[in-house]
Amino acid sequence: MIETPYLLFLGDAPDQLAAKVAQGIKDWRPEFAIGQFRMEGCKADMGLPDLTLAEARAKGVKTLVIGVANRGGVISPAWKKVLIAALEEGFDLASGLHNLLRDEEDLAAVARATGRALHDVRVPEVDYPIANGKKRTGKRMLAVGTDCSVGKMYTALCVEKEMRARGLKATFRATGQTGILITGDGVPLDAVVADFMAGSVEWLTPDNDAGHWDLIEGQGSLFHVSYSGVTLALIHGGQPDALVVCHEPTRPHMRGLPDYALPTLEQVRDTALALARVVNPACVVAGYAINTQHLPQEEAQALLADVEARLGLPATDPFRFGAAKLVDALAAI
Amino acid sequence: MIETPYLLFLGDAPDQLAAKVAQGIKDWRPEFAIGQFRMEGCKADMGLPDLTLAEARAKGVKTLVIGVANRGGVISPAWKKVLIAALEEGFDLASGLHNLLRDEEDLAAVARATGRALHDVRVPEVDYPIANGKKRTGKRMLAVGTDCSVGKMYTALCVEKEMRARGLKATFRATGQTGILITGDGVPLDAVVADFMAGSVEWLTPDNDAGHWDLIEGQGSLFHVSYSGVTLALIHGGQPDALVVCHEPTRPHMRGLPDYALPTLEQVRDTALALARVVNPACVVAGYAINTQHLPQEEAQALLADVEARLGLPATDPFRFGAAKLVDALAAI
Repeated sequence: MIETPYLLFLGDAPDQLAAKVAQGIKDWRPEFAIGQFRMEGCKADMGLPDLTLAEARAKGVKTLVIGVANRGGVISPAWKKVLIAALEEGFDLASGLHNLLRDEEDLAAVARATGRALHDVRVPEVDYPIANGKKRTGKRMLAVGTDCSVGKMYTALCVEKEMRARGLKATFRATGQTGILITGDGVPLDAVVADFMAGSVEWLTPDNDAGHWDLIEGQGSLFHVSYSGVTLALIHGGQPDALVVCHEPTRPHMRGLPDYALPTLEQVRDTALALARVVNPACVVAGYAINTQHLPQEEAQALLADVEARLGLPATDPFRFGAAKLVDALAAI
Repeated sequence: MIETPYLLFLGDAPDQLAAKVAQGIKDWRPEFAIGQFRMEGCKADMGLPDLTLAEARAKGVKTLVIGVANRGGVISPAWKKVLIAALEEGFDLASGLHNLLRDEEDLAAVARATGRALHDVRVPEVDYPIANGKKRTGKRMLAVGTDCSVGKMYTALCVEKEMRARGLKATFRATGQTGILITGDGVPLDAVVADFMAGSVEWLTPDNDAGHWDLIEGQGSLFHVSYSGVTLALIHGGQPDALVVCHEPTRPHMRGLPDYALPTLEQVRDTALALARVVNPACVVAGYAINTQHLPQEEAQALLADVEARLGLPATDPFRFGAAKLVDALAAI
């Protein structure tokens, strides 16, 4: 559990896209995003106050989050001075980079000396149990995709936002690095040892109030041969009452697999639902979340109408057009 | 890769069943099983020559394999004297116990001093790649089950034995601890990090001669909610040309999950085949392997006849009645 609120470290980001972790935090947990820290030459800007470490401290910031990815995932020597000063100022550090904070000897030494925490969210910090499959209270929605990176995290976050706006009890449950940095908590599922995958998802989505919804971030796809096992562990550990099928309609082939075509929405619906019903016979597909970012507005709306007509369930781009339709369907379950 | 041949360490095994790893090696790789080492009070006997460490050395043994499981998977202090003497005699040690050889300070120190290897087969020793899904040459059979521990390893080993007896090229591919100790090589799949599961199976079953069969040990079940992700990674990483569906007909519920009924053979056939065809559209189910150990002979034969009539494919208990029917079906692919 990462302590909030955050100072978002943008470093020397070459462009806005390089700071997409910071953008995610700012978009989805604005209450955590107290300010930003930019170094000379930084080309990203979250529109937050630029704070010195001392100013951030005075505003109650607890953790400096590395909100930027640089080439190769390394921790740049240029950043080190700031990161060390941040530890000395009393902040914890949090990072989703491939290279771990804890493996940098200078950072590790200062963290030890100052008693601060280094959160590498790629590394599980919990001994997860083996899944037991016992029925849990509360409701759960899982985003499943035709492919990797089609908008499963954004779909779950959009549904959470809409549910909360309606006064429903809802919690986004992060299963990937960016989601964990956004919310301060979660399971880095792709780094969990095989035997404990489903158990880690059970741990993440425990018993809850009858009307509460866990909105579980999906990973991979049942049809992505590199990561499908992770997806199935999410389905069986997540014990979903509802699935939302996520899709990006302009992708020419499965991400990173040029020989593999995307499955149809029908294939994902039928395959995921049959497997989900092993753990929850009442599971249904609530609707479709289509990532239309590469389509003009009219084409996007036509596509959504077509999906609704073809599949008989609500379809939306929850980020572009809102998640109301999906929440209507979920609230009726 | 564990160096062969082996001296099988039976320790102070309380009964024959406790030495089932040793039994597996003796049954399936008799050429590796040069002798056994029994301590006072040992109640297990593989019918192999009882050898001193010096005698085993003289016969060319390379590795002392802990062929016995004691309560809690610990490395008994009573064993330590023998294990240390074995390292000093020049043997490597291999173990599938939960408690690791490498974590025993005295063993680790002697291994370092003597330059011997400690093989803890529960721990992956390879940096596996992410699966790329590229079509590989050679043929692959994967054993899939209605449940855990229904005979998937024995099925693959029986098929290997029958194929080799017919002069076919065939290699059993171990994906669990016992299988790895039996063959000296494999992937401890349940201990692999999620993102690399399917890649580790690709690594285990690389390009091969066109007529060669990899006979892949299955793990878990698509219908076992604790481990189903591991099973799907095997299906997608293994790229099977053929599945053999394995079943134990007397089990009252899924292993360790009292609330979950076993799936039917039809459900496993349809679900596994649809998922396997994502990675290999030509995949077929070759037949059924029914573990009839708890049934009298006549009842077992009647059940197999019934499965064949119902499902229209060969069914056998490969350990009890031989794997010829399965190999006939596989050889026709």
